[in-house]
Amino acid sequence: MKFGGTSMGSAERIEAAARLTTEQHANRPVAIVVSAMSKVTDLLLDSLRRAEAGDEAGLDTNLAAMTERHVTCCRALLPAGFQETAIDGVNGLIGEFARIAKGILMLGERPLASVDRAVAIGERLSALLMAAYLESQNTRAAAVNATQVIATDDVFGNASPLMEETRNRAANVVKPLLDQSVIPVVTGFNAATVDGRPTTLGRGGSDFSAAILAAAMDAEELWIWTDVDGIMTGDPRLIPDARVLDEITYSEAAELAYAGAKVLHPRTLAPLIERQIPVWSKNSFAPEKPGTRIVAQLGGGADVAGGPHAVTSMAAVALVAIEPAGAAMSGTRLMAEALEALDSAGVELLAITSSSYRQNFCFLVREAELKVALEHLEEAFTLELTHGYVKPIEVDANVGLIAVVGEGMRGTPGLAGRIFTAISRDNINIIAIAQGSSELTIAIVVRREGLERAVRAVHRECGLGAAQGQAAL
Amino acid sequence: MKFGGTSMGSAERIEAAARLTTEQHANRPVAIVVSAMSKVTDLLLDSLRRAEAGDEAGLDTNLAAMTERHVTCCRALLPAGFQETAIDGVNGLIGEFARIAKGILMLGERPLASVDRAVAIGERLSALLMAAYLESQNTRAAAVNATQVIATDDVFGNASPLMEETRNRAANVVKPLLDQSVIPVVTGFNAATVDGRPTTLGRGGSDFSAAILAAAMDAEELWIWTDVDGIMTGDPRLIPDARVLDEITYSEAAELAYAGAKVLHPRTLAPLIERQIPVWSKNSFAPEKPGTRIVAQLGGGADVAGGPHAVTSMAAVALVAIEPAGAAMSGTRLMAEALEALDSAGVELLAITSSSYRQNFCFLVREAELKVALEHLEEAFTLELTHGYVKPIEVDANVGLIAVVGEGMRGTPGLAGRIFTAISRDNINIIAIAQGSSELTIAIVVRREGLERAVRAVHRECGLGAAQGQAAL
Amino acid sequence: MKFGGTSMGSAERIEAAARLTTEQHANRPVAIVVSAMSKVTDLLLDSLRRAEAGDEAGLDTNLAAMTERHVTCCRALLPAGFQETAIDGVNGLIGEFARIAKGILMLGERPLASVDRAVAIGERLSALLMAAYLESQNTRAAAVNATQVIATDDVFGNASPLMEETRNRAANVVKPLLDQSVIPVVTGFNAATVDGRPTTLGRGGSDFSAAILAAAMDAEELWIWTDVDGIMTGDPRLIPDARVLDEITYSEAAELAYAGAKVLHPRTLAPLIERQIPVWSKNSFAPEKPGTRIVAQLGGGADVAGGPHAVTSMAAVALVAIEPAGAAMSGTRLMAEALEALDSAGVELLAITSSSYRQNFCFLVREAELKVALEHLEEAFTLELTHGYVKPIEVDANVGLIAVVGEGMRGTPGLAGRIFTAISRDNINIIAIAQGSSELTIAIVVRREGLERAVRAVHRECGLGAAQGQAAL
Amino acid sequence: MKFGGTSMGSAERIEAAARLTTEQHANRPVAIVVSAMSKVTDLLLDSLRRAEAGDEAGLDTNLAAMTERHVTCCRALLPAGFQETAIDGVNGLIGEFARIAKGILMLGERPLASVDRAVAIGERLSALLMAAYLESQNTRAAAVNATQVIATDDVFGNASPLMEETRNRAANVVKPLLDQSVIPVVTGFNAATVDGRPTTLGRGGSDFSAAILAAAMDAEELWIWTDVDGIMTGDPRLIPDARVLDEITYSEAAELAYAGAKVLHPRTLAPLIERQIPVWSKNSFAPEKPGTRIVAQLGGGADVAGGPHAVTSMAAVALVAIEPAGAAMSGTRLMAEALEALDSAGVELLAITSSSYRQNFCFLVREAELKVALEHLEEAFTLELTHGYVKPIEVDANVGLIAVVGEGMRGTPGLAGRIFTAISRDNINIIAIAQGSSELTIAIVVRREGLERAVRAVHRECGLGAAQGQAAL
Repeated sequence: MKFGGTSMGSAERIEAAARLTTEQHANRPVAIVVSAMSKVTDLLLDSLRRAEAGDEAGLDTNLAAMTERHVTCCRALLPAGFQETAIDGVNGLIGEFARIAKGILMLGERPLASVDRAVAIGERLSALLMAAYLESQNTRAAAVNATQVIATDDVFGNASPLMEETRNRAANVVKPLLDQSVIPVVTGFNAATVDGRPTTLGRGGSDFSAAILAAAMDAEELWIWTDVDGIMTGDPRLIPDARVLDEITYSEAAELAYAGAKVLHPRTLAPLIERQIPVWSKNSFAPEKPGTRIVAQLGGGADVAGGPHAVTSMAAVALVAIEPAGAAMSGTRLMAEALEALDSAGVELLAITSSSYRQNFCFLVREAELKVALEHLEEAFTLELTHGYVKPIEVDANVGLIAVVGEGMRGTPGLAGRIFTAISRDNINIIAIAQGSSELTIAIVVRREGLERAVRAVHRECGLGAAQGQAAL
Repeated sequence: MKFGGTSMGSAERIEAAARLTTEQHANRPVAIVVSAMSKVTDLLLDSLRRAEAGDEAGLDTNLAAMTERHVTCCRALLPAGFQETAIDGVNGLIGEFARIAKGILMLGERPLASVDRAVAIGERLSALLMAAYLESQNTRAAAVNATQVIATDDVFGNASPLMEETRNRAANVVKPLLDQSVIPVVTGFNAATVDGRPTTLGRGGSDFSAAILAAAMDAEELWIWTDVDGIMTGDPRLIPDARVLDEITYSEAAELAYAGAKVLHPRTLAPLIERQIPVWSKNSFAPEKPGTRIVAQLGGGADVAGGPHAVTSMAAVALVAIEPAGAAMSGTRLMAEALEALDSAGVELLAITSSSYRQNFCFLVREAELKVALEHLEEAFTLELTHGYVKPIEVDANVGLIAVVGEGMRGTPGLAGRIFTAISRDNINIIAIAQGSSELTIAIVVRREGLERAVRAVHRECGLGAAQGQAAL
Repeated sequence: MKFGGTSMGSAERIEAAARLTTEQHANRPVAIVVSAMSKVTDLLLDSLRRAEAGDEAGLDTNLAAMTERHVTCCRALLPAGFQETAIDGVNGLIGEFARIAKGILMLGERPLASVDRAVAIGERLSALLMAAYLESQNTRAAAVNATQVIATDDVFGNASPLMEETRNRAANVVKPLLDQSVIPVVTGFNAATVDGRPTTLGRGGSDFSAAILAAAMDAEELWIWTDVDGIMTGDPRLIPDARVLDEITYSEAAELAYAGAKVLHPRTLAPLIERQIPVWSKNSFAPEKPGTRIVAQLGGGADVAGGPHAVTSMAAVALVAIEPAGAAMSGTRLMAEALEALDSAGVELLAITSSSYRQNFCFLVREAELKVALEHLEEAFTLELTHGYVKPIEVDANVGLIAVVGEGMRGTPGLAGRIFTAISRDNINIIAIAQGSSELTIAIVVRREGLERAVRAVHRECGLGAAQGQAAL
Repeated sequence: MKFGGTSMGSAERIEAAARLTTEQHANRPVAIVVSAMSKVTDLLLDSLRRAEAGDEAGLDTNLAAMTERHVTCCRALLPAGFQETAIDGVNGLIGEFARIAKGILMLGERPLASVDRAVAIGERLSALLMAAYLESQNTRAAAVNATQVIATDDVFGNASPLMEETRNRAANVVKPLLDQSVIPVVTGFNAATVDGRPTTLGRGGSDFSAAILAAAMDAEELWIWTDVDGIMTGDPRLIPDARVLDEITYSEAAELAYAGAKVLHPRTLAPLIERQIPVWSKNSFAPEKPGTRIVAQLGGGADVAGGPHAVTSMAAVALVAIEPAGAAMSGTRLMAEALEALDSAGVELLAITSSSYRQNFCFLVREAELKVALEHLEEAFTLELTHGYVKPIEVDANVGLIAVVGEGMRGTPGLAGRIFTAISRDNINIIAIAQGSSELTIAIVVRREGLERAVRAVHRECGLGAAQGQAAL
């Protein structure tokens, strides 16, 4: 089980999380992974930035706030006998953080490895509180620093797990606790290299920690506790009648996340897919609700019927187009070299399309990666652009991506027509379309200003809303 | 002006073509480019194949048929005083062809350069007849072998023009004739290298010859005489109410041809675009009909309105999909290497799409190039496929391509929806879609068996039919 | 056993060759591979060139000469009863050749596959004569056209063997003859594709045929009969006291051939190395002389002692140097791209050297490949040369290569010093040197005019001469 | 003028350096660049390492030693009135260093940018002392932190100058001082990015600073003051009679440095070559000696005669050889891909050679780069090595490089012979040789244990020794 920041956000929430843990623990061994208390990670990062900027006063204010938050929580959460030890622990950890922050203050520089070491203190604090609370409730528990369990490469700030080493460590560190009915409370987000230097996991964060741990221990199931009821058919901020899905496949979840949905980051799924471990996405504020189950293949729920299962959108994207000029360079060669440049730049392509005699090659990137993408393209084609063998690169940043996702879509005749008609009913122009033969996503690029209306229209047309039910399809 | 095979197919047709020529010639200087008489090129190629196979009797039969056809035409076309000279000319040319064919018979091999030399005799025969007829009608004319005018590289069977050299030759060979009011009757399809070895132009044939000549001489206009009324909104064999377009842009014409329409081959357009020479596609059987005008930008005709201008389809295509397996190779790198392999194989990609987290890369090739494409892909990824870094390449040859083309399409909201809805009304499943940001083509891949129905449905939905008029859009 | 052109050059030579064959045949089964009679291949090629140029009279003269030569030989070689059949065979083959030549005459073109078919007739004639003679001497023999035995790819004029298929064919075609004590007289130089189109083997010619056959049949030994006493320490035309080597390794022989010595072409050795079949190079004019044995490892002869075994030279070479200008391109990258361009051009690099901070990269190519090499380099670096990122490519064609070859050279201290001193004694300047760590060749580039003197000086200094013996080292 | 660490090593040395400066300053404007006092940079780096390791006591000892050294020097160097200010300055700078070191101590990490900022304090201390002393001697002077003058990219620890920006800054910061007869005392080794983050120049250090500044200000001459008499014909520790050269070209100096001689690092020369600024290498302990002049072309000194000018050697090198196995990959392609891998690894190739049919490709790298080189090669050829298309990579680390350098060498017949003979006289085996056509270096690889004897033998043979003079050549 993994509890995110809001599920760990106060003494009450920690109590609730502990209850959910012990309920399951009564039936089968449970290990939990915890995030830092809500907003604590931001506070820690802000402290480090202030330290780098030389703002000693700001740093001290933050340190005080951090201490206050955790000490208050200790007092509310723990009976007298347990408070002192916990508060000592909190002070020790905050002292460790303060020492790093002071070092950064002196250097005026914020080295990556030190940042990784420092921000993990948020999770270490919440693991300490949770373990202390469980112990105070007569449930045996132990805070475990993930640096002891999860081994990674040394890409500080965005490390990747080394699974074999992690399996060995989990067997040595976590397994013995479970065998003795002690609940391991593992810090999320952080890890360490094989030679012990602290790292963090970057994208995917504590979810990724939980997935790695579940895979390393061949867990029966992984439960991700959040503050929403499950994975939804659409973003409820944009689509009032979006509803929670009973079940979704790993692939669908990956596609939704890739196209901007706030669900599990795709990299989180990789270790689970390999071991075929089902994941529950559940609401710790409403644990009685069923949540969404992420599985390899859809079972027999209401969502099994064909057609799209969810719609998502991404506003911060840009469409880039390159095109050969004259016959000096074939379009195919141009595309090959462009893709090579983008690959070496580490830019992810959200969608690609090319359909014409002109061999215009058009692709969608995240706005955050646009600058890097253009730099690498311009470097790769410096001479060709100068000599006019390649037309000037065109960029349209005033666009948004809609992705309609569902395993069964190919078996739904008329779907594409209905989707595009729905979008255009509101005078929203479609700029580009890409759908591959074996894909479960239709990617549609529209003008940015029409994005929200378009995603609502598609959600409605696909009958994904709560009122409509699946029957509509 | 260029007269194709059917426009040169008989004494009557040659008389009609001569009439069209002299009518224009009364107003402004005209050079004409002629194809071989209809079916003659096939007869010549069949003769060479028979020669290679050692079928001497078959060859002799063909030679006799060829002589008969052209001598008969001479007698029907020419007055007594002109007949003898023309018949001598015909016999001389057919003798030249026979000599090559006998050589091939002896070798049992059909070398490319000899084939190029031999098949051009069809055009030389028809140029001889046309020039003789014009002269007999008191219009001065001269048969010109294009080997004297059009210079090409030495890719026998599919040569490309060398424009500078061709401009010089045209100025020296064709211009002086025009200056003296002599109509040059230039052979289509054939040409020669700079050092005089005979070549043929391959794809685009006599149309390409005419376009090269028009560009080399900075012609005011190029008229392509065929046996249809112009460029149509769809293939009339599939779509009974397809109608002739008044006007179309170079780009639209190129896209239509690229996606399978039997209009001017795209390479034919390149020399014209460069010099901005408008092209008329007209029917020599109904010269009074306006035909279609191909221009840089649409002027003011009925087709100016936005929306698609034509629909075309291609049945002999195949959809190929490749996908990385695991993280050893990024999808972007895989695509880059695949495109490089396809480029070096000379395979043209009709459409490309990729829209998913799985980085599945899907592209459409002509069925005729599928084997070569797969061989090059498999060679490029031999080791990756063996080691499982790349999933087995998937091929779906049971598909067809529909291309909807039009400069104004992006400004037509709802179009995509209507097109896809129209296709699916008949239970035809859409397999892949590609539309780029700056493109004037939507490429749609459907199951082969639904292709004809789909193209009819799209034509109807876009209101392209004769009865519907543009009003429907 | 393989008999070259001079060993098959007259009735007397054929008698001698037959004697050498039957002598061995008395002990163990022998198959022989024969070249065309000396100068016949040149005559055939000249005939085809004349045919292409339309010189019918010249062609007829050649045909007559060819008939005369072979018929005369039949009469001198064969007893009455055998003459007629053989002469009929000769006339038949020359008729076959004449037919191809006439075809070429008519086309004015000389297609590769027809040339391959035509030139093989030289070998088919000499195989016919040899088989007839053996039969007339009561030794059973059969002429075998190599198209029945050696399978190749379809690179006409320079085909490569397909060994598995050839092994199967040899087992079916040649083996049964040997089993019945019939001597197979196989044509050298020619072969056929798997689907029966005739090819020739190009470089290596009949030697290569013999090596392929030896390997395909797992021969005990291969004997190459030539008109020299064996492989020599140097070119006897340049070095009067060059002497024959007793023994040499495959690697040494390959290096000598690569650097210009007229010994077995390196590609000839590949099939033999794989099966470890020893080769004897012997003089058919002096069969009592021991000749040179080519083996995997030197055994116990006089040449076993360390030091160089032979010296060879090549005059028709050119030295090319490229160098980065400024820091826009590293020397290493420049070299990498240059090598890629040269590889795709199929240019062989005889030696490479680079030793300086300037990252000047200097390599030696055959003069015949210089043009192609420069074209490909200039194309690869078009833009870099224009922009001055790469200095103008330098070419020095007034150079020659000396290669000193020997397995034991690395164990001979002082050798390099003595070699270079010997060269310079005569005021010959050394332009470039390349010797790799594990190589058995020192490559030395000198001014062309000093090449002959240099090679003599090196031969003398290394004590390779007949008078000197190995003792001098 | 640039004064190195030993020239700034004590009060006496600083006085001497000041004297040399003011002598020149009497004639023409002089700017000087100073290194840290000898051994101070090592002390600073050691301090930072101790801080990272948490050794607070060790750090404090070092800080005390540093203070003691500079304060003692102040007292010895400066009159009473100047001492206090200088000592305050010293304490201030050491305090700045201490703060960074404490920050590192707290983080347990040594970020590059902080290291760059910290180590530059050595130069800032010596610039402070020198400027104070000059002022105390009534010569106007000002310490200038190079961060104000030299702009670089942001490769911390090994930055490269941005010359245009540096020219502007030098004009604004250094020029006005010179105009007012104030001697600028610029810190060597350090610089800053355009946005002010401190960097260091890495290889070449203070020499490079001086060269950049000389070029940026279009200096007449650059004088590099060291503790040796000039650039020598060989390493005097190995060769007792090595002598100082009068004159040497930029190219020769670059080659010597590249091949291991302790002369100006090649990158130091680049800005000087571009502006053709002559460099003097002189001994600050014996300023009356002429030193060596580095110029574009040799003038008229004794060293003008042809032949080699110097010999150098490098022990810490390794020879790597790769070779294709079978025909799956041509040697040329293999080399191309190997060079690409080495280039992307940033490995410098000291020499390259390949001379054989086997297409064995052999190259020399620094031992320090061997590991990286092998890793990149093995990664590049993972599959080829596994499948046996490439033979196992061979490494010979027990070798040394001798480089014989001289512009006139190609015009010296017999030289190569004499060099190799000299080497082998002592039974030293030559492993590889590379000499290119337009190069001024012969690179010779010998067994490591023979390296010293070989370099002595070559020096003697080339008549480079003091006793021998140039006459011997």
